[in-house]
Amino acid sequence: MATGEAGREIRLVSRPVGEPVPGNFELVEVPLGELGDGQVRVANRFMSVDPYMRGRMNDVKSYVPPFELGATLTGSAVGEVVASRSEQLRVGDVAVHGLGWRDYATGPAAAFTVVDGTAPLSHYLGILGMPGLTAYAGLVDVARLAPSETVFVSGAAGAVGSAAGQMARLLGAGRVVGSAGSETKVRYLTEELGFDAAFDYRSGKVTRLLADAAPDGVDVYFDNVGGEHLEAAISVMRDFGRVAACGAVSNYNATGPVPGPRNLGLVVGKRLTIRGFIVGDHAQLRPGFLDKVGGWIRDGSLVVPETFVDGLERAPDAFIGMLRGENTGKMVVRLGGTA
Amino acid sequence: MATGEAGREIRLVSRPVGEPVPGNFELVEVPLGELGDGQVRVANRFMSVDPYMRGRMNDVKSYVPPFELGATLTGSAVGEVVASRSEQLRVGDVAVHGLGWRDYATGPAAAFTVVDGTAPLSHYLGILGMPGLTAYAGLVDVARLAPSETVFVSGAAGAVGSAAGQMARLLGAGRVVGSAGSETKVRYLTEELGFDAAFDYRSGKVTRLLADAAPDGVDVYFDNVGGEHLEAAISVMRDFGRVAACGAVSNYNATGPVPGPRNLGLVVGKRLTIRGFIVGDHAQLRPGFLDKVGGWIRDGSLVVPETFVDGLERAPDAFIGMLRGENTGKMVVRLGGTA
Repeated sequence: MATGEAGREIRLVSRPVGEPVPGNFELVEVPLGELGDGQVRVANRFMSVDPYMRGRMNDVKSYVPPFELGATLTGSAVGEVVASRSEQLRVGDVAVHGLGWRDYATGPAAAFTVVDGTAPLSHYLGILGMPGLTAYAGLVDVARLAPSETVFVSGAAGAVGSAAGQMARLLGAGRVVGSAGSETKVRYLTEELGFDAAFDYRSGKVTRLLADAAPDGVDVYFDNVGGEHLEAAISVMRDFGRVAACGAVSNYNATGPVPGPRNLGLVVGKRLTIRGFIVGDHAQLRPGFLDKVGGWIRDGSLVVPETFVDGLERAPDAFIGMLRGENTGKMVVRLGGTA
Repeated sequence: MATGEAGREIRLVSRPVGEPVPGNFELVEVPLGELGDGQVRVANRFMSVDPYMRGRMNDVKSYVPPFELGATLTGSAVGEVVASRSEQLRVGDVAVHGLGWRDYATGPAAAFTVVDGTAPLSHYLGILGMPGLTAYAGLVDVARLAPSETVFVSGAAGAVGSAAGQMARLLGAGRVVGSAGSETKVRYLTEELGFDAAFDYRSGKVTRLLADAAPDGVDVYFDNVGGEHLEAAISVMRDFGRVAACGAVSNYNATGPVPGPRNLGLVVGKRLTIRGFIVGDHAQLRPGFLDKVGGWIRDGSLVVPETFVDGLERAPDAFIGMLRGENTGKMVVRLGGTA
């Protein structure tokens, strides 16, 4: 790679109002420039689009600051080191990092984490990365899932949901129920991912659909969706049930306040716990998580669905499509980056 | 007391729709009859009216079954044993029990708990009874209050709220904020009960009033009210804040579903926990609670506000008035019961 070469990046040029549109994004070419001392350059092979990014596109304070207008977007990515002026990484190393939305990531060595690269690289953005650990932490640390309990997962065909549902089963849940946005996904959940029951939330009242799928009630609700799903879960939950509140994708494109569940008063009588969490607070679980989940993948007990979109220029489409639920499993953008 | 004597009781004769009215209740005279073997009769001195009773007047399943139409109401009461055919209680003993809403309580000895009677009898229905233990359990077991945290208590002039706010201070909270429904109560909270700040929730937007009273945010919210108060608390809560969800008196008279907080999505980014509880699950705290709270009352560090209404015939008015917030501290009905 010659020093004069250019890379491509995607910038946020306007803040979405409601659903993002392609015009909110811009693809630009930038010169790669010389590496500084201690710097590393990675040719990205895969980059991630995740629901939480939608929140960062709004100009509001949250647990992560908003994306800046005109700046290149960031997010998880994985690739190969193509140049290094650090002793910590060598050309050919596989590294994960937070400089996605671009062909080449350049930064200080500390910004990159070398992985063994024995799994398919895209897995480091999904089942072995943030979404996988999110699912695991939500079940283990937040909901404290106990053997033989009934677990309900919304957005169950998504990256986190498909992991959470399968992990719940493998951790000993008695019954695992999922919701998704199409009949095809629903069949996938029960036929391929081992869910005991699943329903298409677009096919009726969620409370009715959930009550039919979990006739004895729900002990743990892994909430990726919020809104009507949360209200339904509260309605059917058993005494001492726990909600691991991971996200509320049903609200992410909302342009105004979203009414909360109308039955929140039930948390008192049923002694429910609703607990929000973000994966960064549960990093101490990572070693045990990698051990356990790595084993489940190797022995085939955990299926890893992924949906690929090709080309950096299509990353905005992948992001928009993911928010619409066009993916099954982790939505990943495959990049052309080569050394 | 002659066997032929009669007692009075209050029955629920129709289910309230919205706010209860006197016509939902009926005062009847009943013959007291002979005591059976092992039975005890207590002349009630005080009976309790509590917010949770409103829920039991609806015909819906909850953690306690609904009151039956035509049957005598029940609730906490305290009085003196006036007749006993059990060796476990003697005439003159002071006993607390669940057979309120009547002049005389008759039942098996196991239905009565003898107390030492050194405190004013009404305290056994409030600060030393269910409301006091509710406040303590909510802070200690549910919210896990830590020293120097900021605590917000809604319904802070009520039986549970006035206890929770004072106990929070005595347990080491850094700042205690309360809301109440009048300027008089607000002054009482800060001038008599030691709250650091208080506001009249009827005087403006609760979120604004709370933000002004707790400019650095809230760590623990003791929720007696629900509705707009809960939304306000979620809005100003600090990361890792906890809501001890004790009740939602703002909803108790509602005739339809009540919209939940519109900002519930914040529980994720702020990693909030909302946990419902009922005092019956925390009975193991009682010995330590009685020790600690008894000490605080004796040394004057805990003030015990009570509002008295005289006469069983006025118990429905006391109940209706309590739901309207006419009481300061525990609402208690003083009964004429004498041996």
